[in-house]
Amino acid sequence: MRLARLFPVLEWGRGYGAATFSSDLLAAVIVTIMLIPQSLAYAMLAGLPPHVGLYASVAPLVVYALFGSSRTLAVGPVAVVSLMTAAAVGQVATPGTPEYVAAAITLAFLSGLVLVAMAAARLGFIANFLSHPVISGFISASGLLIAVSQLKHILGIPAAGHTLPEMVEQLALHADRVNWITVAIGVSATVFLFAVRSRLKPALIKLGVNRRLADVIAKAGPVAAVVVSTLAVSQWGLAEQGVRIVGAIPQGLPPVTLPQFDPALWVELLPAAILISVVGFVESVSVAQTLAAKRRQRIDADQELVGLGGANIAAALTGGYPVTGGFARSVVNFDAGAETPFAGVMTAAGILVTAVFLTPLFHNLPQAVLAATIIVAVLSLVDLKSLRRTWTYSKSDFTAQAATILMVLGVGVEAGIVTGVALSLLLFLWRTSRPHMAVVGQVPGTEHFRNIERHAVIQSPTVLSVRVDESLYFANARYLEDRIYDLVASRPELKHVVLMCPAVNLIDASALESLEAIAARLKSAGVTLHLSEVKGPVMDRLRRSDFFEHFEGQVFLSHHQAMEALDPVMTRHASAGPVALVKAMKAGE
Amino acid sequence: MRLARLFPVLEWGRGYGAATFSSDLLAAVIVTIMLIPQSLAYAMLAGLPPHVGLYASVAPLVVYALFGSSRTLAVGPVAVVSLMTAAAVGQVATPGTPEYVAAAITLAFLSGLVLVAMAAARLGFIANFLSHPVISGFISASGLLIAVSQLKHILGIPAAGHTLPEMVEQLALHADRVNWITVAIGVSATVFLFAVRSRLKPALIKLGVNRRLADVIAKAGPVAAVVVSTLAVSQWGLAEQGVRIVGAIPQGLPPVTLPQFDPALWVELLPAAILISVVGFVESVSVAQTLAAKRRQRIDADQELVGLGGANIAAALTGGYPVTGGFARSVVNFDAGAETPFAGVMTAAGILVTAVFLTPLFHNLPQAVLAATIIVAVLSLVDLKSLRRTWTYSKSDFTAQAATILMVLGVGVEAGIVTGVALSLLLFLWRTSRPHMAVVGQVPGTEHFRNIERHAVIQSPTVLSVRVDESLYFANARYLEDRIYDLVASRPELKHVVLMCPAVNLIDASALESLEAIAARLKSAGVTLHLSEVKGPVMDRLRRSDFFEHFEGQVFLSHHQAMEALDPVMTRHASAGPVALVKAMKAGE
Repeated sequence: MRLARLFPVLEWGRGYGAATFSSDLLAAVIVTIMLIPQSLAYAMLAGLPPHVGLYASVAPLVVYALFGSSRTLAVGPVAVVSLMTAAAVGQVATPGTPEYVAAAITLAFLSGLVLVAMAAARLGFIANFLSHPVISGFISASGLLIAVSQLKHILGIPAAGHTLPEMVEQLALHADRVNWITVAIGVSATVFLFAVRSRLKPALIKLGVNRRLADVIAKAGPVAAVVVSTLAVSQWGLAEQGVRIVGAIPQGLPPVTLPQFDPALWVELLPAAILISVVGFVESVSVAQTLAAKRRQRIDADQELVGLGGANIAAALTGGYPVTGGFARSVVNFDAGAETPFAGVMTAAGILVTAVFLTPLFHNLPQAVLAATIIVAVLSLVDLKSLRRTWTYSKSDFTAQAATILMVLGVGVEAGIVTGVALSLLLFLWRTSRPHMAVVGQVPGTEHFRNIERHAVIQSPTVLSVRVDESLYFANARYLEDRIYDLVASRPELKHVVLMCPAVNLIDASALESLEAIAARLKSAGVTLHLSEVKGPVMDRLRRSDFFEHFEGQVFLSHHQAMEALDPVMTRHASAGPVALVKAMKAGE
Repeated sequence: MRLARLFPVLEWGRGYGAATFSSDLLAAVIVTIMLIPQSLAYAMLAGLPPHVGLYASVAPLVVYALFGSSRTLAVGPVAVVSLMTAAAVGQVATPGTPEYVAAAITLAFLSGLVLVAMAAARLGFIANFLSHPVISGFISASGLLIAVSQLKHILGIPAAGHTLPEMVEQLALHADRVNWITVAIGVSATVFLFAVRSRLKPALIKLGVNRRLADVIAKAGPVAAVVVSTLAVSQWGLAEQGVRIVGAIPQGLPPVTLPQFDPALWVELLPAAILISVVGFVESVSVAQTLAAKRRQRIDADQELVGLGGANIAAALTGGYPVTGGFARSVVNFDAGAETPFAGVMTAAGILVTAVFLTPLFHNLPQAVLAATIIVAVLSLVDLKSLRRTWTYSKSDFTAQAATILMVLGVGVEAGIVTGVALSLLLFLWRTSRPHMAVVGQVPGTEHFRNIERHAVIQSPTVLSVRVDESLYFANARYLEDRIYDLVASRPELKHVVLMCPAVNLIDASALESLEAIAARLKSAGVTLHLSEVKGPVMDRLRRSDFFEHFEGQVFLSHHQAMEALDPVMTRHASAGPVALVKAMKAGE
């Protein structure tokens, strides 16, 4: 059982047959076609030689197929993680040097270790601390940043910079050096890929092409762009006219590599490795869960950590760089009918064949076409409508989301994710530190008590019913004291205060002291404090303390019982219904 | 009105008369007597020359009297802040040098600025983020650390070290150099002070001495120790035999000083200044609130920031070091009958007279006696019983408290407080990320619904009622999904799931998406999701979103109404009372 949990392959491998194989094979072919240009492009985005992207798409896929719990997740280089790799490795080495590649390999290794360590500590839950608006803001902003970073390849100019303002400034600075042939290639590739992505498939189906075939043709769009542009460059010798090309890619099996065991480097790369691991894990597990839900399968978050950790270690040992489960390619894999992780193994085989035999074909591929591939892929991640939706629903969520976006664009991806998480946690804490409190009264004709400001309810003149809509803990304990003192101060005829606790899920030691202080202070003013609807776990905890040794009020199971005991006349009237309400309201005037 | 708020003196000064004056005067005399040896001792603890302690006890008291909102808080050098000052200033200068004194002055200035800035931003509430167990652990551990740090003075040996292990090691290392005359003085002073503190007052009252006089005599105990030991040193020339004495203290008014306006120094000291400000503010405001509550007065946390900020700036301008409201001396001031902050002004006058005329008297005062004063004062702050109380009540609170204590003792005061705050916040988040959820049923004969595992309640076979005991937000959104899927999976005959939300104080954007996902998934299994007892503010927010455009269930005002609508037969039985319960239970078997 435990073995089957650690190696999900033992489960799905058992029933593997010809039908499953053919589904997996078709999916593998489609994903391989899609992955070849993407691997080259994302490696370029990470500042690495293109073949590193191919290497990162072989061994990691096989290892994930062994350990991962998702049936359809497609692992490999992805846009956001490539960008984060560039940011992290750029701190310790210069792009284009062997040290840069070595540092990227080390980063993949560290990231793998972090993921495996998180699995060992069963920390899969920490993905939950990234709120949806923060993730969505982070992905959108990263997509935008990546798209802008590719403009230099489309324009054929040199430009550096890691933030949006830097990039724009650099582009403006070098605007006079635009290579118009490169622009022609880049722009037409971009337009072509956008058209293929959004229009081709419906158009083909309209023309009577079989739906599945239309799908394969649409997915092969990038391959067509690659082939046509490469041929054009070779034919007309465009490389001599300033069009930058991929150049020589070493041909052969992925090499066996080792990370650098340099403590200083590890310390420098560790924070980035942790962030890359968490972000990659969150992206991956979100996709995996979405897809699994569609087929009623389950994802085990801790097992996903093992799978991704293994994939990254495999990347480090075979000349790759950090990988994770990609959104777009997993959806493609799923839609193409992949049923088991064996589709991933076959994709790996496809990429391996490419690395060994086909790399010379990419020599004359223009970098502008790879850039176009990236731009089209990442712009589909940008969802700025989400900002407006979040704004309407919750200003706190919006604040966290907007801060994430601004930090990603203005400072960097790492600063963005850290700010987003920290801010969303702080805003949650801030909100719980000033809880909503309502004075409640009885809804006539029921045993139900609601906010006096929202409902036509009946209040007792001598019993104040206060509902606290939050757990009581140190951050709001003093606020609770202040609010209750204020409420009591304005009602001189009070005899009892009943704190209605259905929303109190926790009373911590600080809040317990505050309750004792409130009870003592009310007592000296001739008012008794009671509690009602205290939940089981909270009550158990109170009983463990010496609270009830000093507490002179009562604890009522329901608020209605409290009112029956403390103001029976009023309660009888209220329970009797609307007629009594009118009477009671008149009496109250 | 606003002026009276900024200068509370305008309020209490108006009704000032002879009776109040005589109460204040008596309190001032007692506090002055207590404060003189304490000021010298705490300055020594901070690594500063003793007269700096006197300087810090003059101008700050006057400024606090003008701006502070507490009537009885006694401001000046305190043990914990002195220790934190030593830790912070020790990082940038060597004790005994003029640079050290200058850095302490700068620290006081920065701390004053931080407090005033916090007041301007109305950040008084941040004191709430220090939980009681963390504060109590911090104060106890600091007290212990301070007591141990004074042992070197009692033993008359040189010893350094900032953490408990370091101090113990240093003491052991130099154990052979113990000065036995110093030990005799130190130990007898300690025993004497403990006896005076705990035994003298009751003994005197038993002997028929007037209660108030007994109090004054007991409070004068440290003065007696100072006088006797100073005389002994002078008489027998003990200083020549290796007993370390206070030595020459400059005589005169506190000097006018300015902080160093050195940006690098400010950057280095700022984190410490922030921590000292927050810790000092929390200590101060806790005492002030406790005392104010006893006399039905109110403390304004933001105004306290102004008062303490002003006091620290005053300290910086008159050769002092960081100050705050002290626990012990405020209680003494209160017990001695102080009614207004004018008692503080008179205390300042008493210390001023001491600084100008009396300092030569302290020349032969043994440092061991000052150390004894500190030990006796701080050991009263150590409350290790609190650890056991916290352990019984809440393991989370205990964890935060124990971590605070261990960090203070093992690493330092600043690491301790930061760890405590961070850990208590993280534990709260962790707890809210795995909320308590209960399946509920109807309590027979009522309209009340409680946990099926704790109460004899009636459940419907086709309607699952789940109460979630926590706000729904990003950290627990996925957990909610998992739990509901698990609950539904084990009940094949279900038609409806009602999520009972009286404890849901917030549904953030992430949780909203989860609710939509749950509704969609349940729908595909033929089950409808409903909500009940959704609170007003939460409902308002849901209405602002497009949630109800897709939501196919209903939202019921009360859970009872939900059950009446979804399973009327069962509900009628249950509401009818115990007899129906028995029937229903039989039917259910």
